[in-house]
Parts: sequence; structure tokens; C-alpha cells
Amino acid sequence: MDLFYDADFSESNPILNETESHHLVKVLRARVGDPVRITNGKGDFFNARIAEINTGTCLLKVERKYPEMHKKYRLHIAVAPTKSQDRMEWLLEKATEIGIDEITPVVCMHSERRTLQMQRLNKIMVAALKQSMKATLPVLHPISSFDEIIRTKGWEQKFICTEGAGKHLKVVSSPSLKYLVLIGPEGDFHPDEVARAKDSGFLDANLGGNRLRTETAALQVVSYFSILNA
Amino acid sequence: MDLFYDADFSESNPILNETESHHLVKVLRARVGDPVRITNGKGDFFNARIAEINTGTCLLKVERKYPEMHKKYRLHIAVAPTKSQDRMEWLLEKATEIGIDEITPVVCMHSERRTLQMQRLNKIMVAALKQSMKATLPVLHPISSFDEIIRTKGWEQKFICTEGAGKHLKVVSSPSLKYLVLIGPEGDFHPDEVARAKDSGFLDANLGGNRLRTETAALQVVSYFSILNA
Repeated sequence: MDLFYDADFSESNPILNETESHHLVKVLRARVGDPVRITNGKGDFFNARIAEINTGTCLLKVERKYPEMHKKYRLHIAVAPTKSQDRMEWLLEKATEIGIDEITPVVCMHSERRTLQMQRLNKIMVAALKQSMKATLPVLHPISSFDEIIRTKGWEQKFICTEGAGKHLKVVSSPSLKYLVLIGPEGDFHPDEVARAKDSGFLDANLGGNRLRTETAALQVVSYFSILNA
Repeated sequence: MDLFYDADFSESNPILNETESHHLVKVLRARVGDPVRITNGKGDFFNARIAEINTGTCLLKVERKYPEMHKKYRLHIAVAPTKSQDRMEWLLEKATEIGIDEITPVVCMHSERRTLQMQRLNKIMVAALKQSMKATLPVLHPISSFDEIIRTKGWEQKFICTEGAGKHLKVVSSPSLKYLVLIGPEGDFHPDEVARAKDSGFLDANLGGNRLRTETAALQVVSYFSILNA
């Protein structure tokens, strides 16, 4: 059964937005009384039925609201934009499927790209959310500077992944925490950036001997924390 | 410095094939005496210099032959072909970067696709091999039937990943072994397939609560074993 996404949907406002209502009624040909499953992308699922089909939107009757299975950790990946937008797109699709809470594109000294089609990236995350039956849409933050991101507060373990680092991420990370992980551009971080991150409480870590593309390294980290906390 | 790939290159036959010679001489404008780094995709790197530039090919002088850093494990992923060829392509690109030894597309009961552009997939693995500076080109086996693959011999731990499975892969796997892992299609394996695999010595395992696409599940497994054995 399809999962519908509407950020503004709630028990007090059980109206499915136009896009999703169109898909439900015009594409799937649903009728009054048919069951619908919705998420607000904020951790909640709703089991509902179609109460009224109006022009443009549908009024639903919520039968049950329930939260997504509790996740033991929070993950924020701060990653240098990849050379091509499409590599960023598949990273966000896969990260949404596997599990990530926040993503921030970070402009580093060696960054080649400094802009992204953010709206398109959000669309891809929504599609992945629905496809993977999740209820938490990752937060895609605006592009940030390196100095902004290393000043971010509220994360229990902060890592900067770099080839030079002495220890593997699995040696320095612990389960069930809030993680912020920095992933650099193709040319890796500048030594000054690594030094500044360490001064701000980041631990440097490597991902093994492999020379990984930016998006592969980021996905490796997403996979690692999902397995560590499984 | 670019890495060149020529499966037939050796100290006794130090002739770089036409495609790579063209790239070296016509694209990179290399000259006699210039250094070249080559891999045969069989675990060996060669540091060489251009001795002669002939029509079509280059004769090189090998200065040093050395093996890729020893890998502690071997991984064979047997995966149902994805609906779209391009998802298979990125899986093979990423798996090559992170580390995999053998890949077999497997036709399962719920498979929607039964053919793949194998030559194109090989090209993508070669590109990823060169880009990630590796010396071992994964072996892409021809499409196999489910019964063929579960009879495959020579693997120390064999897993079939399925949503129903009781234990997480990380609970049932051990480091430094030869692993064969079965990844099913979108509709997952048929219970009969799981039963037959278990009869053939496969352990069933899950990858956590996430509902993953086929290629995401396969990459999750590739990442897991690379981290387990790091």
C-alpha cells in the first residue's frame, strides 16, 4: 500500500494536499471510504480513510496515529557538494532509505561546487521516504561554510573523516549517540580545516584504506551508524 | 596521477593496450620517458615508463611491480537484477570502490528483470577501479539461477538477507572469512527460496528494520564487511 506524504497533515487538519490528493484520486482512482496511509515526515504515521473527495483535495478521517519505530541515534552528515548534482541526489536517496536525520552541504577549501538544486534534492528525499515507508524526512540544511558547521552545537560525537587520520571511525565511535560527521571533497580537507575542526572538538577518523568518492564516503558513514546502532 | 588498466599487461608483455595507449598519448599527451602507473586488475600494480610510442600502442619499461594492500576477506554478492539497469550500474561502481571480489546477478522468483548489459557494467567497474586506485577488478559472473548460486562452493559464511530473518547480519557474521551473500528483489525472496538456501548451508539474516531497495541492501552489505574487516 502506498505511503502518502503531507508535512501539514494532522488529526486536527486531516486534509491531504493537492499533489497527494491528485495521486490518490486521479492516478490510483481511490473512492470515499478507501484506506490511506500518510506520514507528516516528522515521525508520525496516520492510518485514515477518505471522508470527502473535494475539488483538488481530499478530507480524510484519521483512524490511528502512531510513531515510527524509535531510532536509537541521530546522525547529521555535513558533506562537501559533489562535482555533479546527480551524485548528491543518489546520496540523499540512499541516506534517506538507510536512515539519516540532517544533511548539510558544506563548502570547503577544495570544494569544486558551491551550489545545489535544493528543491530537487528535497523531492528526491520525499520520494525515498515514501518508497522506504519511513516517517522521518531528513532535514536538508542550506549550504553552510566550514566555519559555521564546526561551530554547530548539540552533537555528542563529532568526527571529521580524512585519509590522513590515524584511527578508523569504528574505533572512535560509540553507539546510541548524536553524531555529526564531516565528509570532505574529492581533494579531501585542507590540513588547516582538519586542525580547526579538531580545535572545535571533532575527532579525526578514517574509513579504511579505500580511496572513496565523496558520496561513497558519506554513504559508508550512514551505513556504519545504522549497523552500529542496529 | 592516473591509473591505467590493462588485463593483459605484464613484465614479459609490457605493451599497453590501444584504448589506454590512446588516452595516455593522445589525451594526456605523454612522451617517451614519462612515468605510467598500470594495474592488471588481478591484484598487481606496475610503475613503468614509456619506452616506445608506436602506432596504436605503447611499449613500457616496468620499473616496479607490487601487489595491492592485502585484503583480509573475500566477498561475493549474489543479487537480483534491479528493475532499472542504472541502479545496478551505481551498485557496481560503489561496490568496486568500497571493495568486493565477485558479483553474480541472480534471477529469483520475484525478479522483474532477467537481463543486464553486462559489457556496460564491466566498463563501469573498470572506471571505478581506476578512479579508486584499486588493483582488483571484481569478477562479474553471468546471470545465474537461484539453484545454481545456492550450490556454489568454497565460501566460509553464506547468508541470505531477508526481511523476515530473526538475526541481524552483524550478529551472525565473523571477520576475516570468505562470504557469499544473497540479496533479493524488491518483493524479497519467496519463502521457498529462503528455505532452499538454508538447506544449502545459508544463514538467514536481516539488515535492520529499514525497507531497503535491492541495490541499497547490497551496498549496505558491502559496506558492512569492509567495516567489519577494517
